[in-house]
Amino acid sequence: MVSVAVVGAAGYTGVEAMRWILAHPRFDLVMATSGADAGTRVAEVYPAFAGSTDIAFTAPDAESLAEVADAAVLAVPHTAAMALAPLLLDAGLKVVDLSADFRLTDPAVYEQWYETPHVCPDLLAEAVYGLPEVDRSKLAAARLVAGPGCYPTATTLAAMPALEAGVAKPGRVIVDAKSGVSGAGRTPTSTTHYCSANEAVAAYKVGAHRHIPEIEQVLTGVAGEPVSVMFAPHLVPMARGLLSTVYMEATDPSIALADVHALYVQRYAHEPFVHVHDLGRMPSTAEVRGTNRAAIGVTLDEHTGTVVASCAIDNLGKGAAGQGIQCLNAMFGLPETEGLDAVGAVV
Amino acid sequence: MVSVAVVGAAGYTGVEAMRWILAHPRFDLVMATSGADAGTRVAEVYPAFAGSTDIAFTAPDAESLAEVADAAVLAVPHTAAMALAPLLLDAGLKVVDLSADFRLTDPAVYEQWYETPHVCPDLLAEAVYGLPEVDRSKLAAARLVAGPGCYPTATTLAAMPALEAGVAKPGRVIVDAKSGVSGAGRTPTSTTHYCSANEAVAAYKVGAHRHIPEIEQVLTGVAGEPVSVMFAPHLVPMARGLLSTVYMEATDPSIALADVHALYVQRYAHEPFVHVHDLGRMPSTAEVRGTNRAAIGVTLDEHTGTVVASCAIDNLGKGAAGQGIQCLNAMFGLPETEGLDAVGAVV
Amino acid sequence: MVSVAVVGAAGYTGVEAMRWILAHPRFDLVMATSGADAGTRVAEVYPAFAGSTDIAFTAPDAESLAEVADAAVLAVPHTAAMALAPLLLDAGLKVVDLSADFRLTDPAVYEQWYETPHVCPDLLAEAVYGLPEVDRSKLAAARLVAGPGCYPTATTLAAMPALEAGVAKPGRVIVDAKSGVSGAGRTPTSTTHYCSANEAVAAYKVGAHRHIPEIEQVLTGVAGEPVSVMFAPHLVPMARGLLSTVYMEATDPSIALADVHALYVQRYAHEPFVHVHDLGRMPSTAEVRGTNRAAIGVTLDEHTGTVVASCAIDNLGKGAAGQGIQCLNAMFGLPETEGLDAVGAVV
Amino acid sequence: MVSVAVVGAAGYTGVEAMRWILAHPRFDLVMATSGADAGTRVAEVYPAFAGSTDIAFTAPDAESLAEVADAAVLAVPHTAAMALAPLLLDAGLKVVDLSADFRLTDPAVYEQWYETPHVCPDLLAEAVYGLPEVDRSKLAAARLVAGPGCYPTATTLAAMPALEAGVAKPGRVIVDAKSGVSGAGRTPTSTTHYCSANEAVAAYKVGAHRHIPEIEQVLTGVAGEPVSVMFAPHLVPMARGLLSTVYMEATDPSIALADVHALYVQRYAHEPFVHVHDLGRMPSTAEVRGTNRAAIGVTLDEHTGTVVASCAIDNLGKGAAGQGIQCLNAMFGLPETEGLDAVGAVV
Repeated sequence: MVSVAVVGAAGYTGVEAMRWILAHPRFDLVMATSGADAGTRVAEVYPAFAGSTDIAFTAPDAESLAEVADAAVLAVPHTAAMALAPLLLDAGLKVVDLSADFRLTDPAVYEQWYETPHVCPDLLAEAVYGLPEVDRSKLAAARLVAGPGCYPTATTLAAMPALEAGVAKPGRVIVDAKSGVSGAGRTPTSTTHYCSANEAVAAYKVGAHRHIPEIEQVLTGVAGEPVSVMFAPHLVPMARGLLSTVYMEATDPSIALADVHALYVQRYAHEPFVHVHDLGRMPSTAEVRGTNRAAIGVTLDEHTGTVVASCAIDNLGKGAAGQGIQCLNAMFGLPETEGLDAVGAVV
Repeated sequence: MVSVAVVGAAGYTGVEAMRWILAHPRFDLVMATSGADAGTRVAEVYPAFAGSTDIAFTAPDAESLAEVADAAVLAVPHTAAMALAPLLLDAGLKVVDLSADFRLTDPAVYEQWYETPHVCPDLLAEAVYGLPEVDRSKLAAARLVAGPGCYPTATTLAAMPALEAGVAKPGRVIVDAKSGVSGAGRTPTSTTHYCSANEAVAAYKVGAHRHIPEIEQVLTGVAGEPVSVMFAPHLVPMARGLLSTVYMEATDPSIALADVHALYVQRYAHEPFVHVHDLGRMPSTAEVRGTNRAAIGVTLDEHTGTVVASCAIDNLGKGAAGQGIQCLNAMFGLPETEGLDAVGAVV
Repeated sequence: MVSVAVVGAAGYTGVEAMRWILAHPRFDLVMATSGADAGTRVAEVYPAFAGSTDIAFTAPDAESLAEVADAAVLAVPHTAAMALAPLLLDAGLKVVDLSADFRLTDPAVYEQWYETPHVCPDLLAEAVYGLPEVDRSKLAAARLVAGPGCYPTATTLAAMPALEAGVAKPGRVIVDAKSGVSGAGRTPTSTTHYCSANEAVAAYKVGAHRHIPEIEQVLTGVAGEPVSVMFAPHLVPMARGLLSTVYMEATDPSIALADVHALYVQRYAHEPFVHVHDLGRMPSTAEVRGTNRAAIGVTLDEHTGTVVASCAIDNLGKGAAGQGIQCLNAMFGLPETEGLDAVGAVV
Repeated sequence: MVSVAVVGAAGYTGVEAMRWILAHPRFDLVMATSGADAGTRVAEVYPAFAGSTDIAFTAPDAESLAEVADAAVLAVPHTAAMALAPLLLDAGLKVVDLSADFRLTDPAVYEQWYETPHVCPDLLAEAVYGLPEVDRSKLAAARLVAGPGCYPTATTLAAMPALEAGVAKPGRVIVDAKSGVSGAGRTPTSTTHYCSANEAVAAYKVGAHRHIPEIEQVLTGVAGEPVSVMFAPHLVPMARGLLSTVYMEATDPSIALADVHALYVQRYAHEPFVHVHDLGRMPSTAEVRGTNRAAIGVTLDEHTGTVVASCAIDNLGKGAAGQGIQCLNAMFGLPETEGLDAVGAVV
């Protein structure tokens, strides 16, 4: 059994990580930290945990973590993660960081978008990007994995096969994404107020969202040439779920629709968490809710020569905590699916 | 491994039963019947199952079921269940029926409320009522278990401790229940249309719902004297979840609140799926969503001498399929919690 | 034209009052105060007002209000209202207060429930309770009207005919009410977070809600003898709407259902905003959304001798701002329906 | 007063049209037809109308309509509209058709997309497209107005200023639109079931929706050269509201953001129902709910040279019935805003 701690366990991502770890046959939840909730039992704050664990939140502290845990899942905000990660790594823990601190390989890009210098650029160089479907080769040996953002996960899975194969052009990839409200975090704000979010759809941070450099970095990597992305996230009235619909110019407008589809099917044929729908069907966030799965639909609009791919994930599952567990499995030599294969609820 | 078939597997309860069975370490899903969907893969109708099972729906047929299954979960409408159950029992299967056909012990009461004669009253006499928290003694030996209704489950769990102990009077128990829309089933109707159910709360079938005789039967059993119930179900805008708030006249208005609470805590102290909240906290359907758990809060309104108990369940979990699996576990000598102990999602 | 100011105009009730006033043929919106938003245009905060008004929020100030307004609608929290009302009345304004400050006739009861002494008990004595369906006789001459609470409005309309006529007993009236999230106000909290309120139903403040003394005061008034109420409010996942289902013991259990219904129909026959449904139909909050209407259904459960009445209102309409405008109409000699008769949207 | 009939009055668009007509100071609702509901009072089907009208649905019949009405709003499905419109026009009525039957100017294109021949191509030639912001010049004299589709309305308003001014290229305009469930109509289907639509976002009919030729026809008209559109509609979990986000390649990537914004502000400066947000703000469907308004936000993504414009409407308001009333006003010489200027609810 691997002893796992969740740092920042009281937020939506942290609590979701705890849920997966408690259900995991090879992981033990040994510590759950939360500065604000320290001293309170998890089940007191989240009664869904009553009967499943008696663990209480504790204040985050590297030394205590190092004492009890083999691995830590960091579900803290950016900057907090890079402050803590070096200490945990030094103490011999394996770390999966679900914040943005280790996703961007270039510290200058990090500083530009997050408006603060990176405090451990060495670790940036070491960190492995935790999107197994792109490249899982380094996960087994990794000490530090950077869990991808929710939008980059869905967008990459949607766009990768076409860009990788050169079927779509890398310039001006249009990404229109739709996220549920939990993506905005647990802190109550006027945006997350039920009466604001309910019966409302709107775009936000168009062309200005911090996930843009991450998306471009990953897609550029798979395309082998610079990919530029026009990214427009939208908030939709649901708690969980994220859909990224990607519009790419077909390199050869006369390509057959069936060939585009076959490319996607083949690309993900051996991926346990990625399902490509039959031609003519587009994915819904409902079919992946509460799971680590991604569902993809793809089509070719011959009229405009556009490859359209849509990917549905659960922003807290494949878009955050679930994917973190998938990586942790790989880091500990377990099958990636371990503890993650329950079927999602249909309703 | 026990081979389990789900009959009527395409409805919400059936699909939920399949989800639990697929995740169960000791159960194999060997057949899923649906007249309307026969020949179609489950994952085609419900893409959440993609990657988890290749099973296809088949037409319901007693002989085929008997060939492959040790047990059947019936998730068909009433009348269909009592037509099929005798055949399956004769063939040696154990049966958990989630319809209303075997819940009422008196065939005359069945006929009065369901407006059709009962076709196998002998089996009514044999059937064991599948609410383990009331009486689990006969489950281990049962061939046929009648899974309780969703409203009776939540209402019984809320009212039982007070009535059983004589702390509340059995006359004119007021039950105001609130159910999510999935309780109305998968068939599209004007009631279940998103635009009807959204932003709407209303009572329906006040004093006329078919769960009334079932609730009174169970509560009369535990109280040891006739319990009469005023039952008003309400439809609320959510997919899953059921809350039953029960108002009972305190037998002795000077009873201490702490004593009432202690009674509830003690009554459910050893129940793995029932959680009684601390004094002052009332349960939310959100904390049991997707699980087989029940959460209960209780208080005493000294001002009016009223015991108020509120019980939250997932109508498809503890209110239907989850409870069916709990009973099936008992019928096969397994721990009741087997395959049912995953923590529910918080968001 | 009557010049009307809304004080506390940035909260949900205040902004709803502005909406009604702008649509009113005889009212002019002359001032909208909000300490937090002073200096910002209303349409900047609430773009729904773009094109309809150029008014900006100003800091609340009695002198400025007195200068421009003939009347003020107070949509501020309790205690703030009683601090301001005397100044406005002295300056000659008519005041409709939508807070709780002038609803309870006994200052001692106010202090008991609101945990602060009442600072102007004289005005308590003068204030007229603004539920026209109970007693509109004093509204025309009133300087100060106390707008009823949302729960008391729906509960009174549901219970009044039966209690007034002596058809139901005044003891232990059970009130199970369900409110949308806007009832909790605009301030973001963990309760009003979309991810908390969505897919969740729960009771809160059972037997302890501040609307209890108000409900008992009004119902005692109409019954002519002390009415005691067991009140359990519930939060349901919708933005607007409130349903109060009331359970009363029938005085004479052999009374005919048709007679109970006829009593309700007759009681509200001349009320422009109250609609009593035909026998067998219960009201939904959906049918009164965005309006000043109340919809009522009533039945008699002969089995338990219980009169069950359910009343649906919009908590921000008949439950707050709409009713305030209705009262203001009466105070200025206008038909109560003036500016309030638009049909609500069906979807 | 103008006597107006609504044909197909029981569907969501028809009932919304009735709501506007009843609130209109110059229109009288004289007939409401519905084959399925004939003989039933409108208020019986839709209790929101109780107290506002005693009108009952009648069977649709051209002769009866001609007897009582000066104008008819057709809210029937396509093909039904073109069967009825000639009869009504012959009888001297003015007709606003909210179906698709008179939107496409070329009968061959109609037949291609709607898979049925057009039965009155002469009227196609005569019909005036009812999007006043594009061209209101012919509305005053029109006998027959084709109310635009909901997606074309929002998409045109978002894209028009840039295409008209040549600031964006006409090739491969990407349109990602999001609609509430009422857009799918009142008939219950598995798609509109609450449990399917809730907590779910998905694309549908990508590149294959019948609104594509309409969008291209209108935008080609304003651009003065062929516009090709890649259109992907999405269903989002809300009852009302539609957001169309449009991505266009900037003709001159070095154009200033402020200039693009100024272009939009100027284009709609005199439009009473179109509001262009300040730079940096994108519209939400919440701010136009229940109204005939459109809210627009626009930005220029300099990184990719993309003009992004997002337009929010109420699909039943500006996207259907509201716009129909706006056109009817113009056809009868009334101000376009007559009866349509109520402020929308904020919550």
